[in-house]
Amino acid sequence: MSLLVVGSTAFDAIETPFGKIEKVLGGSAPFICLAAAKFTKPVRLVSVVGADFPESDLAMLADGGVDLAGLQKIADGKTMFWSGKYHTDMNSRDTLVTELNVLADFDPTIPESYNDTDYLMLGNLSPTVQRQVLERLPKRPKLVVMDTMNFWMSHTPAELAVTLKLIDVLCINDSEARELSGEYSLRKAARKIMEMGPKTLIIKKGEHGALLFQGEQLFFAPALLLEDVFDPTGAGDTFAGGFAGYLAATDDISFENMKRAIIYGSALASFSVEEFGPQRLHRLTEEELNSRVQTFVDLVQYQVPVS
Amino acid sequence: MSLLVVGSTAFDAIETPFGKIEKVLGGSAPFICLAAAKFTKPVRLVSVVGADFPESDLAMLADGGVDLAGLQKIADGKTMFWSGKYHTDMNSRDTLVTELNVLADFDPTIPESYNDTDYLMLGNLSPTVQRQVLERLPKRPKLVVMDTMNFWMSHTPAELAVTLKLIDVLCINDSEARELSGEYSLRKAARKIMEMGPKTLIIKKGEHGALLFQGEQLFFAPALLLEDVFDPTGAGDTFAGGFAGYLAATDDISFENMKRAIIYGSALASFSVEEFGPQRLHRLTEEELNSRVQTFVDLVQYQVPVS
Repeated sequence: MSLLVVGSTAFDAIETPFGKIEKVLGGSAPFICLAAAKFTKPVRLVSVVGADFPESDLAMLADGGVDLAGLQKIADGKTMFWSGKYHTDMNSRDTLVTELNVLADFDPTIPESYNDTDYLMLGNLSPTVQRQVLERLPKRPKLVVMDTMNFWMSHTPAELAVTLKLIDVLCINDSEARELSGEYSLRKAARKIMEMGPKTLIIKKGEHGALLFQGEQLFFAPALLLEDVFDPTGAGDTFAGGFAGYLAATDDISFENMKRAIIYGSALASFSVEEFGPQRLHRLTEEELNSRVQTFVDLVQYQVPVS
Repeated sequence: MSLLVVGSTAFDAIETPFGKIEKVLGGSAPFICLAAAKFTKPVRLVSVVGADFPESDLAMLADGGVDLAGLQKIADGKTMFWSGKYHTDMNSRDTLVTELNVLADFDPTIPESYNDTDYLMLGNLSPTVQRQVLERLPKRPKLVVMDTMNFWMSHTPAELAVTLKLIDVLCINDSEARELSGEYSLRKAARKIMEMGPKTLIIKKGEHGALLFQGEQLFFAPALLLEDVFDPTGAGDTFAGGFAGYLAATDDISFENMKRAIIYGSALASFSVEEFGPQRLHRLTEEELNSRVQTFVDLVQYQVPVS
């Protein structure tokens, strides 16, 4: 089934304990789209870039299975820029620069060819733009998945609350779940957040895996124990993109299938952290992905004789 | 098969965000013994207490399945005392007081009735005492499991290194694994630590589960997502005791059986954090334990169609 992704497209400057890069394709949209396109093609994109956005990146996205009909190019504008530096433990980072540029006035337009969209993935972006995309679609998609971050919780809580009421699945990390709910216990946090709108909640715990909540149902997906994480930027977007792409491809939104979607999202994220930018995702083969998924299966496999 | 446990026996004063207690049975030995005795009875104990140790605690341990023949009672001495306060996140704590008392000069004696010990659990204690217990047994047990902590890594690293060479399974937490190895990546840390002696390593990650390493084999056991953790004191000891007790009861030290042992240890630990002290373990029924183990099975259950 068709999947539409809205998200930011940016250039990133990143420093990690393992290396440094001055300019690499970033933002939530490229990671989400390239991850989702491993399962369903083409992935429809709504985003915005400036005149400085190179043909080579457009070609890479198109080659990776992204439909660029909804990518606005602002002739007199600059693409968003983000710069960050990771701490030694790679679990925390400092944002050094955020220049929204063309994203500041982004007014999303839905191409007519996207009108029959079945699945919608709202990548991290202003909750107002996320809501506009949903409202501008002539029919409500079968499933709306949303990613967001702590920035919107503290800066635009009212707008975020409105958008939360409209979606089906929310995908945030553990500290964001605690901030949004005011609860330290993730079980209590999940219950409160599911009362804010989304019937399903995914809490990402980075190197500690991910939790899937739906009503009283709970599933835990481990993360792989990687030798090293080179650059975690985009890992959460990749995870969300893999999740949404798998659901769209299988057209099955049962809890059981969401478990599988989370394993596939986790497997994709474990590749994306190997290099700067989304290039690793772009190169990734089906064989590599399936072999990684098997590693996830093996990691938690055991037999307990229970009565 | 028979299991011998050596460890500290203490009184604890504990403060958590949920409550406070001035004096409760603590130390590594009571938690390990009561957990292990869920699978194999009696559990042989080597430890030391002072004249102030009450009959009621002795009776509780005996009732829980602990063989007290090796518990020394020092007539003119005081039982070890520990006092600690947990931070809001319950993942870290400050030690306020440590009075070793009778544990300072502990010279472990092995009762003759313990001579045929098959499995040995070296609970957290000075690595010298741990080694003495192992060396004073007339025959080497089939499997020696050891728990230790960062205190011994920084204060008696040479003694710790000697004891590490003699054991089979080491059980430590993630920050201790990083300290002991000097590696941040747990995969690299595990490889280095397994070169120090133990062929099998368990890294406990608290609320994030536990990892089991043996050569290139790896298993990940999740932790349950508890509503609240009331008091984490003794959770690691309970886990280790459940692990060792399950192995002794089944007399199977294969990697596959160690996976099961970890799940049972994790299940026991999830009960022990519900209350101050080891009372919850003492009251725990087989039905409650089996039902909790089933929760672990369900938590990570999924089917992925892999090729």
